[in-house]
Amino acid sequence: MASNNTLPPVPAPVSGLRFSVHYEFSAENLDVARQVALEIALEQSVELPENLTPRGDIRDEIVGRCGDPQELSAGRWRVAISYPIEAISASLPGLISTVFANTSMKAAIRVAALETGPEVARLFPGPRFGTEGLRQRLAAETRPLVGTALKPMGYPPVELARIAGAFARGGLDVIKDDHNLMDQPFAPFRERVARCTEAVQQANAQTGGHSIYVPHLSGPIESLLERAHLASELGAGGLEIMPGVMGYDSIRLLASEQGPGLPVFSHPGMLGTYTLHPQQGLSHRVIYGSFPRLAGADVSIFTGFGGRFPTTEADCQGILDAIREPLGSYPSILPMPGGGMTTARIPEMTRFYGADVILLISGDLFRGEGGIEATARRFRQAVAD
Amino acid sequence: MASNNTLPPVPAPVSGLRFSVHYEFSAENLDVARQVALEIALEQSVELPENLTPRGDIRDEIVGRCGDPQELSAGRWRVAISYPIEAISASLPGLISTVFANTSMKAAIRVAALETGPEVARLFPGPRFGTEGLRQRLAAETRPLVGTALKPMGYPPVELARIAGAFARGGLDVIKDDHNLMDQPFAPFRERVARCTEAVQQANAQTGGHSIYVPHLSGPIESLLERAHLASELGAGGLEIMPGVMGYDSIRLLASEQGPGLPVFSHPGMLGTYTLHPQQGLSHRVIYGSFPRLAGADVSIFTGFGGRFPTTEADCQGILDAIREPLGSYPSILPMPGGGMTTARIPEMTRFYGADVILLISGDLFRGEGGIEATARRFRQAVAD
Repeated sequence: MASNNTLPPVPAPVSGLRFSVHYEFSAENLDVARQVALEIALEQSVELPENLTPRGDIRDEIVGRCGDPQELSAGRWRVAISYPIEAISASLPGLISTVFANTSMKAAIRVAALETGPEVARLFPGPRFGTEGLRQRLAAETRPLVGTALKPMGYPPVELARIAGAFARGGLDVIKDDHNLMDQPFAPFRERVARCTEAVQQANAQTGGHSIYVPHLSGPIESLLERAHLASELGAGGLEIMPGVMGYDSIRLLASEQGPGLPVFSHPGMLGTYTLHPQQGLSHRVIYGSFPRLAGADVSIFTGFGGRFPTTEADCQGILDAIREPLGSYPSILPMPGGGMTTARIPEMTRFYGADVILLISGDLFRGEGGIEATARRFRQAVAD
Repeated sequence: MASNNTLPPVPAPVSGLRFSVHYEFSAENLDVARQVALEIALEQSVELPENLTPRGDIRDEIVGRCGDPQELSAGRWRVAISYPIEAISASLPGLISTVFANTSMKAAIRVAALETGPEVARLFPGPRFGTEGLRQRLAAETRPLVGTALKPMGYPPVELARIAGAFARGGLDVIKDDHNLMDQPFAPFRERVARCTEAVQQANAQTGGHSIYVPHLSGPIESLLERAHLASELGAGGLEIMPGVMGYDSIRLLASEQGPGLPVFSHPGMLGTYTLHPQQGLSHRVIYGSFPRLAGADVSIFTGFGGRFPTTEADCQGILDAIREPLGSYPSILPMPGGGMTTARIPEMTRFYGADVILLISGDLFRGEGGIEATARRFRQAVAD
């Protein structure tokens, strides 16, 4: 007979502070649901079967502690599992790993929500600007904000700058790079940022506006801070990055004291798969709400409902809840829904999101009568002052 | 009537070198399939509708170029789309973004395979050791290699070192940290690496073996290289990281000349969702094969077929193809399948993977008779010399 429990109990001193993750999963009945919950709790902590897990502190404090599973619908359950705050290793990669790393490989389990509380929030610097801070920089106290994406890849800096200038003269608050713009030979990073900031600043001088140009920083990880400081020196008004490619910790780094002190925009590239299947991955709430806010993003870009991507109103509501709910001393951050939006949808969108939103319209601005500047102006004017 | 094409044609000089991505997607007929393919090609390059895309070089060279869609099964298609090599921006984040960033948010589209060719491979340093290089370090020329994961979180360095020493005396080639071990107060990184390397080196001195300890490096991104060099100075034999949390570019950085020159192990944490749904995300081949190899990993850890995760033999074959096929001057790299493996399955696994594999068994080593060392020895001896 095989002998089990060769691992002796040892003390594992913990503070007693814990944070919770809400998982949804499939199970035929309550007994099975309890078993699945325990398997998640073990997988996400000691990664041992229960009978091999050392007793004492390891079993009692380190292993995730399961609440009672609640049946959401026939065969679908939700459970809160708490982990000791020490498991996070005081790092965002540690938090993300604890939430889902290995369980991401198992079928039919979804992370629905985080309950991190102020103790977890305190481990990270958090958003530097948030809703109010960004509104101040944009000199727009109460109205919905408007933004667009600069494109296409292949255009040289002078042409991109021409477009950026037209957007700014039209009154758009935020002109961010399309995430396809990186450091290509058509429009190298330094020259693009120099020309586009110049064009936006000239437009501001002309109109008295406060538009910002937000370059995209994804690229080699070791030179990320270098690009961020360069962008800042050249006059950029924010920094855009894809955590799905660069890791959420790159947002935290940009928002930290090592960064140049500019608002950080989180782009959803590569993250879509996490939310697509409603019974797997992580909820919109967590991927586009909790994670970017904990990382310190000031703006979370995502594909809103009603556009060319399959996102629902409920998905977007989850994001709003996560970026607006009380969280330590963190400010709320701004949602920036996009992905096939049109001027005609502005009333519907501001009804849903309220005024604290950056409406992202891009392709549609190239379609209107009278050129880009005129179309941008109509978009800006469709948002009440 | 709205005026289109406000964006003028401009020259976008390209080398003519292109690389291809194979997408699988759903469509009712060939006409729809061609339309979906074009939408992917536009989304992944200029992010504009076709009628707004500037003619000339942008439309002809920058926009993805679609092959003819082939029907795989009723309503499911496959197409090869090529992009100009310049789109990558000579960076791994640029490659990953071009392959799938925004399309990840669309339903029923999956990246099946990459055809990057030697030109893309040349942009990155590639795996430093590969199969042969790692075999040399492990002094194991031809036999299957054996490895395990050190755990559990909560144990102090002295206990983890005791276990690591037993694994090494038992003859395991690779003793890697469980990905839950980071820099927790129970076992801070520096002390854990110091104690565990010491224990493994003592065991090697005793047995004449060449076991390596591979610490887990995921954590704050700005100190990644610092942890890597510290691990090297303390005698670690490899470096483990989770690209799903830290970004694939962190592998490239560790494998570069800025890293300490140790074999890099890619851990699958957080990547599971990409492969789970067969019609979405990215294939095992790409996520656990092409990406880690292009990033420069020497070993790709993944959940093999037949364990506690839902992976099939075909999934694993895709990984093997991607890590073994000719790719510029890159060496092949080693697969490290794990996730609920047992000693009893060794013959089945070596039949499938061949000898160039690191068999990863962890929980099962704590279950056997006679203690950890004896169980590890039986595991090692089950692999023919």
